[in-house]
Amino acid sequence: MAKVVVFDSWNERYKRPFGAVKQGATVDFRIDVALPYVSKVELKIHKDGMGEQSLEMKHTENGVYEVEFQPYAETGLYFYYFKIQQNFDTQTRTTYYFNNRDLHGGEGFFTENYHDMCTYQLTCFEYADQAPEWYRDAVFYHIFVDRFYNADDMVREPKPDSFIYARKEDTPYYIKNDKGEILRWEFYGGNLEGITQKLTYLKELGISGLYLSPIFEAKSNHKYDTSDYKKIDPMFGDESILTELIQKAGELGMRIILDGVFNHVGEDSLYFNRYGHFDSLGAYQSVDSPYYHWFTFQHFPEKYDAWWGVSNLPVVNKESKSFQEMIYAGKDSVIDYWTERGAAGWRLDVADELPDAFIAGIRQTLMKYPDRVLIGEVWEDATNKIAYDQRRHYLEGGMLQGVMNYPFRQVIIDLLNGQITTKQATLKTMGIKENYPTEALAANLNNIGTHDTARILTMLHEDKAKLRLAIYMLMVLPGVPCIYYGDEAGLTGGADPDNRKFYPWGREDEEISGFFREAIQLRNTTEALRKGDYYPFSLNNLFGVIRYMTGDSWHMFIVNPTNEAQKVDLATCYPESGRWQDILKFLNIQGKTIAPHDFFYV
Amino acid sequence: MAKVVVFDSWNERYKRPFGAVKQGATVDFRIDVALPYVSKVELKIHKDGMGEQSLEMKHTENGVYEVEFQPYAETGLYFYYFKIQQNFDTQTRTTYYFNNRDLHGGEGFFTENYHDMCTYQLTCFEYADQAPEWYRDAVFYHIFVDRFYNADDMVREPKPDSFIYARKEDTPYYIKNDKGEILRWEFYGGNLEGITQKLTYLKELGISGLYLSPIFEAKSNHKYDTSDYKKIDPMFGDESILTELIQKAGELGMRIILDGVFNHVGEDSLYFNRYGHFDSLGAYQSVDSPYYHWFTFQHFPEKYDAWWGVSNLPVVNKESKSFQEMIYAGKDSVIDYWTERGAAGWRLDVADELPDAFIAGIRQTLMKYPDRVLIGEVWEDATNKIAYDQRRHYLEGGMLQGVMNYPFRQVIIDLLNGQITTKQATLKTMGIKENYPTEALAANLNNIGTHDTARILTMLHEDKAKLRLAIYMLMVLPGVPCIYYGDEAGLTGGADPDNRKFYPWGREDEEISGFFREAIQLRNTTEALRKGDYYPFSLNNLFGVIRYMTGDSWHMFIVNPTNEAQKVDLATCYPESGRWQDILKFLNIQGKTIAPHDFFYV
Repeated sequence: MAKVVVFDSWNERYKRPFGAVKQGATVDFRIDVALPYVSKVELKIHKDGMGEQSLEMKHTENGVYEVEFQPYAETGLYFYYFKIQQNFDTQTRTTYYFNNRDLHGGEGFFTENYHDMCTYQLTCFEYADQAPEWYRDAVFYHIFVDRFYNADDMVREPKPDSFIYARKEDTPYYIKNDKGEILRWEFYGGNLEGITQKLTYLKELGISGLYLSPIFEAKSNHKYDTSDYKKIDPMFGDESILTELIQKAGELGMRIILDGVFNHVGEDSLYFNRYGHFDSLGAYQSVDSPYYHWFTFQHFPEKYDAWWGVSNLPVVNKESKSFQEMIYAGKDSVIDYWTERGAAGWRLDVADELPDAFIAGIRQTLMKYPDRVLIGEVWEDATNKIAYDQRRHYLEGGMLQGVMNYPFRQVIIDLLNGQITTKQATLKTMGIKENYPTEALAANLNNIGTHDTARILTMLHEDKAKLRLAIYMLMVLPGVPCIYYGDEAGLTGGADPDNRKFYPWGREDEEISGFFREAIQLRNTTEALRKGDYYPFSLNNLFGVIRYMTGDSWHMFIVNPTNEAQKVDLATCYPESGRWQDILKFLNIQGKTIAPHDFFYV
Repeated sequence: MAKVVVFDSWNERYKRPFGAVKQGATVDFRIDVALPYVSKVELKIHKDGMGEQSLEMKHTENGVYEVEFQPYAETGLYFYYFKIQQNFDTQTRTTYYFNNRDLHGGEGFFTENYHDMCTYQLTCFEYADQAPEWYRDAVFYHIFVDRFYNADDMVREPKPDSFIYARKEDTPYYIKNDKGEILRWEFYGGNLEGITQKLTYLKELGISGLYLSPIFEAKSNHKYDTSDYKKIDPMFGDESILTELIQKAGELGMRIILDGVFNHVGEDSLYFNRYGHFDSLGAYQSVDSPYYHWFTFQHFPEKYDAWWGVSNLPVVNKESKSFQEMIYAGKDSVIDYWTERGAAGWRLDVADELPDAFIAGIRQTLMKYPDRVLIGEVWEDATNKIAYDQRRHYLEGGMLQGVMNYPFRQVIIDLLNGQITTKQATLKTMGIKENYPTEALAANLNNIGTHDTARILTMLHEDKAKLRLAIYMLMVLPGVPCIYYGDEAGLTGGADPDNRKFYPWGREDEEISGFFREAIQLRNTTEALRKGDYYPFSLNNLFGVIRYMTGDSWHMFIVNPTNEAQKVDLATCYPESGRWQDILKFLNIQGKTIAPHDFFYV
């Protein structure tokens, strides 16, 4: 049965241009309404947090209604739906066309019930905030420094009252009390010099960007509890060792981005100085501390705001001018200091906790340096994230250039584990594509696992065939692929700390390493996989991706996530129309069989 | 008021010879009874666990009653008291003279109440089981191997899933769950080669005997959970490293005794093999295991007898012939194996848990080798210890030659902390002297701290002046002094694991080291301190010790445990008569002042 009302935000017949738009652009909306006695069709649209505007749509041909919309001056999100009125003899019938209930855009649904309302999102950005080319073209490698490599037999400059794992192959273990508080920190001893010694390995793997977990002085093994923003943790090395790492990486064509942890500091820090280990007058020690106003004490000094209530991570008040000065606004700020020394960019930890203005301030500082990139840790769709009752504007220009793309990770894992259909994978990734400015989509740091998630091999129940597909999907989806250290060696592991094992040097799974090397090489040698437009589609149980440049420059990837052979049946294609249709026909692959857990790439 | 009935087991007027006697000896008892109408005085005596014998005492002169007693054939303990009958015209009055309520011998008390009964102890031993001369003359040093010295920067052959302390100066810490179960073992990395490298240091300290904590393969850092009795723990070294240690020690005049842990094994052992880490068929794995009958399963395999209920220490049934064969009775037994390789003796862990016959069996094996010593871990007076409802016969010949002398440690600490008076110190040490065969008293391994106690410096509230006195007392009391590693460097520490810090190489307290060196040198250069008879006494708040050889060969030590100067007042001397009286008079020290926390030695 043909649908009586049709709108599809992904189809340029109905909305043009596709996706997010730049401030000042005009968006053409069209809707097909095959209903009798239609008296009025309206585009109901409102700027995020503001009142609704009604734009009456013009009946241009039989059952087709159109309107042009120009976003107001302000950038941000617009939400819309359609309202249809029919006038019968004695009554008026009002109906609506809403976004689907998954809110991913594309086709929605027609209803009489206003309370079903699901609005479409239109992202309006200030300017196309493109990340530097080196970054967009890179394949990244995420190193949790303590767990990667130690060039020495010994651990240098260990922390007082801490433990060192007896063997690199030991499983990670937190030494906690029943309240979950860490009683002693444990270390494997990986350090910056160790990374320097493994640069050739990384180069051969095909890596061109490194994302390091925090490297500034801190008490823990993860170093998200900064003690001193201007000092390399002595266990990891020192400034000259970092400089050497950056330089040698540069010689091999690799750049390094740092993890900026600016929401909280360590209780055992220059700033808070709970234990008096630092020469400074810390906030915990005195209300006369220059850092006192960085923190929020409910009851001085014992009770203070801490990240997720973890008392060893006192939260900093990001509105504090002196904190802003230190981090980005002042002379020789933290951002200046390390960027000058060669950091190619920053990943902002818990970006949701950092006010927009704070992030924009960091970005502004960073803009003084050419070719730097700023990305952030956001777990959900970053275009419409609300954190602490505030809509965030990460990707609308002048703030982040991309985010860590956890939604794509979820799609990959769910698809391969049979938790979502191939059509759902299409819809979910299209939803991200629609909401993100194109430049941001291309600059997301994609992953299939990080230090905050279970290992991909474990998520896939240690099924290597599935792992191979996950790796290829990471390489063909839009954005910058980032490999979590050790995934390529076959490391397994559940939740933290199991996902932070030491890299199994000499015990690598060569089959898995081979998958990674091949897939990375494909990416590195294929411009369309790095720069091409993204068109996902499903063919029954097959999931397809086209990365399209121009003309003949495209690649297609069709994956069979099931454990049975699947035949290509073009009649089952979703979406029913689009560029992929022509390509599929051109390829003449109707009836082609794709083996279980295999893929077709052309 | 003069006492009406007098007996004093320490005074040869009343009992001769003093103390424990050899089987077949005759003991003369005498009692002074200044009562009217005495019709009968009896020595009531019984062999431990047997019926009471009444020996009527002969009235030899005015109010003096005497009897000779010859212990029955069997060795062991005899308990006695005195019964006095008076016949008045119309009635009979029965009274008693009992041992004092502290049961330490010496003077007792006269009472009408039979229910006040406290018996005296007479120890009767089979033969004088003298320890070898080298041992009796030695100053021992007790090394907890993991905590002493590591010759390397690295820890070799670490255990899987264990931790290494980041720094030698870190404080020890058990990684336990709330049930107290160890989740991961932690190590500093001390080893046998480390000891070898420190032999010169120990020699210069004046040490001539080493007592090593267990060195056979085991999972823990303490190694009381043996995995394999025939293998040196790989973290500690191997057989050739042990051989080298023994040989080099020998060249420096030092002998080494080993810790024999035969009551239980590790669950992770060749014998029990709970985790299948060994190639053997362990008792946990199968009822067909050759070791199955070593253990007592309440419910195979999960529920079994374990030491103090600690499931990782399954208790061995010492009656098992095959276990006895392995430990001491068979060809190439554990005792043979390591004694042949140069062990100068053994300290038996938890001797209370080992049946007499088991200990005697070990001793018999050890007798094949010249000059070996066997001592045991017993915490109380070892002459009358009852363990598991059995009276133990450790020191009556053919079993242990001495025990770890914790009662003396308690006297030293209590005296210096003002918890007991100088008279109590006299009484308590005399009580031990009386009960122990002379040869055993000389062969006890005395200590002021071990791996099972708080550190002496901590017990003395970190008062160095008191520590100095404790060291000297350890050197002047009868028995073989044993210094717990690190006490001489000023280590502090409460209960386990705080008492097991790593030796603070380079951070020693030189003042304390000096105390130890001087006191040890005094002992090493003074025959009377090693071989002399022991006579303790008190002079008001002063505690004195005479170590008497023959004729003019004696030394006297008078310590002031208080924080005020004390004057010698001979009129306050306890006991009132004895050899010390002549010496005190000879020395002419009436009125001599001894400074607070100081001593007088001549």
